[in-house]
Amino acid sequence: MKRILHILFLLLLTGFAAMAQRPPAISSPEVHPDHSITFRYFSRKAQKVSVSGEFLTAPVAMTKDTSGIWSVTVPPVKPDIYPYSFWVDTVQIADPNNTYIFANERFKRSIVDIPGDKPLVHSLQNVPHGKISYRYYKSTTLGTTRPLLVYTPPGYDPTGKTKYPVLYLIHGGSDTEETWTKVGRANFIADNLIAQGKAKPMIIVMPYGNVRPSPMPDFTKDIVNDIIPYVEANYLVQADSKSRAVAGFSVGGGQTLNIGLTNTDKFAYVCSYAPFTATDEFKKNFSDWSPNADQMNKQLKLFTISIATEDFLYESVKQNIAMFKDKKLNLETLVVPGGHTWMNCKLYLTNTLQQLFK
Amino acid sequence: MKRILHILFLLLLTGFAAMAQRPPAISSPEVHPDHSITFRYFSRKAQKVSVSGEFLTAPVAMTKDTSGIWSVTVPPVKPDIYPYSFWVDTVQIADPNNTYIFANERFKRSIVDIPGDKPLVHSLQNVPHGKISYRYYKSTTLGTTRPLLVYTPPGYDPTGKTKYPVLYLIHGGSDTEETWTKVGRANFIADNLIAQGKAKPMIIVMPYGNVRPSPMPDFTKDIVNDIIPYVEANYLVQADSKSRAVAGFSVGGGQTLNIGLTNTDKFAYVCSYAPFTATDEFKKNFSDWSPNADQMNKQLKLFTISIATEDFLYESVKQNIAMFKDKKLNLETLVVPGGHTWMNCKLYLTNTLQQLFK
Repeated sequence: MKRILHILFLLLLTGFAAMAQRPPAISSPEVHPDHSITFRYFSRKAQKVSVSGEFLTAPVAMTKDTSGIWSVTVPPVKPDIYPYSFWVDTVQIADPNNTYIFANERFKRSIVDIPGDKPLVHSLQNVPHGKISYRYYKSTTLGTTRPLLVYTPPGYDPTGKTKYPVLYLIHGGSDTEETWTKVGRANFIADNLIAQGKAKPMIIVMPYGNVRPSPMPDFTKDIVNDIIPYVEANYLVQADSKSRAVAGFSVGGGQTLNIGLTNTDKFAYVCSYAPFTATDEFKKNFSDWSPNADQMNKQLKLFTISIATEDFLYESVKQNIAMFKDKKLNLETLVVPGGHTWMNCKLYLTNTLQQLFK
Repeated sequence: MKRILHILFLLLLTGFAAMAQRPPAISSPEVHPDHSITFRYFSRKAQKVSVSGEFLTAPVAMTKDTSGIWSVTVPPVKPDIYPYSFWVDTVQIADPNNTYIFANERFKRSIVDIPGDKPLVHSLQNVPHGKISYRYYKSTTLGTTRPLLVYTPPGYDPTGKTKYPVLYLIHGGSDTEETWTKVGRANFIADNLIAQGKAKPMIIVMPYGNVRPSPMPDFTKDIVNDIIPYVEANYLVQADSKSRAVAGFSVGGGQTLNIGLTNTDKFAYVCSYAPFTATDEFKKNFSDWSPNADQMNKQLKLFTISIATEDFLYESVKQNIAMFKDKKLNLETLVVPGGHTWMNCKLYLTNTLQQLFK
């Protein structure tokens, strides 16, 4: 009987392997205590495998052992969360042994989390946790049911009387409604800053900002006419402009400027990160623009643009900053090192969350 | 000025392309009204590209046009959600132009959704939608903070008095806590069956079932000692065995048998899908087992095992079915065509949801 069980067990294992033609399960990425990282990939047939990531200036070649496992250990990396991918001969792939994927509509890289010696602001810490809810709303503007994510802070009590301010937080161009949580860790950043008393408890709404093939201005209408009413009908929300913020990155940073600055009666906080503004909507709104700066400066409690010096949009953003200042708008800027990255997105958001609703 | 803007715009586009070394955005998969599907992939360098998927008996070669876009259109496929991947020379990849990924800890395939001529039970329909919440609980058993997803049904009102029964629903071996929603569409299936009056409104808790490197029995302890108390402290829950069900697929199907049948005082519904049972815990629980069948049959309102005839676990599951029947347990079986697939998982769950809490 024992022998039969043993044979059965082997057959089952064989079945599992045969079923999915799976390569062996290997550990990748393996982050070491000194913050160096070992990447591994299995292929007997590949001629060349390398790892490419936003912690590297150039791809690093991996070497193959006799069992067909390619690997390389890269020197210590500054603690943060980085996207990376493998190049296998001419093909770019995500790391098949890594659970965590960069939520995106196009090529989805893997992400590696290098913890700090002390917990970072985006780390899962031993503090009360807010809740992320996946919701669906009917967009009358876009004629469809669309997804959005809602972060409610720790202690949010739907049975209570406390109402919260709301940040509407928009992802980048080919990202999805999940990118701000899965890559940007907006929920953990908020949890930690709220626990430290550095941010006010707030609701964060993360909509899906891409509208295709319709033109971009529809998303401004969608957020004003559909998303805000949905949120205010379903959550305990302070429904005045001083309790409403909009922020976003890249294409979402451009959307933030369009949404926020044309609706200063609705948003007292407009926080744009590395905005991409080469759009018809931006041109229409701001290329021949004579704002009532005094009125806008009274309505806006905070208008910020954040940008990194090696961001490929740096020159364009500098011009927009000059343009807004030229129109006499009170504009605060945050200029940091680095590129057009989600490492910087976390930094921008960490800054914003400490400024809002105070 | 217009010329300068135009040049700036071109520079920006170039920047975007250069930044990420991105291939052109192409549409893939494209599902046609007749349920045929066109797959596309861009590579100038690949020698051979094919598509492999659970709607195909063998990989299908794609052909390259002069611009480097490989494509193939496969004949009409039965409406459902299928995992698929591309083989580029010797490398297996997810479809880089498809947003939707099979949530898994190892190789992550893409998924394609072929809608029915009428909406399917797993389709987003125009009915009230429940809410999926991403939560974190402290596991004293496992000594860490772990994720879980909670589906609350449409109309769930934390301020109200209605309490709900709970289904604990466990994923397969290398899946994640997201696989039942992202691939299994448990939320839409529940929304639709509840709207049709075919399922009772219920809460569905989807934990992360993998425990490594610890031995498997820890997850049984975790669900009983940590997850159930967390859920019952945070949701309006009917906290008796007649209002508690456990179900799961593959490795999770084996966990379901271990969890459910050793805790019939806690679970009156035990629904196991294609269980993988070659584990120490299963052996310990059931290889030399003398249950009090009369008592268990009184406690269990429903004990089901579902399996497909071409599932690689079919023979093993048949033996377990015979073993449980031999022990005089009342066991209902559902045997369907097909393999060890998430297409069948949706079918099993659809069946279960209509049987629970009635």
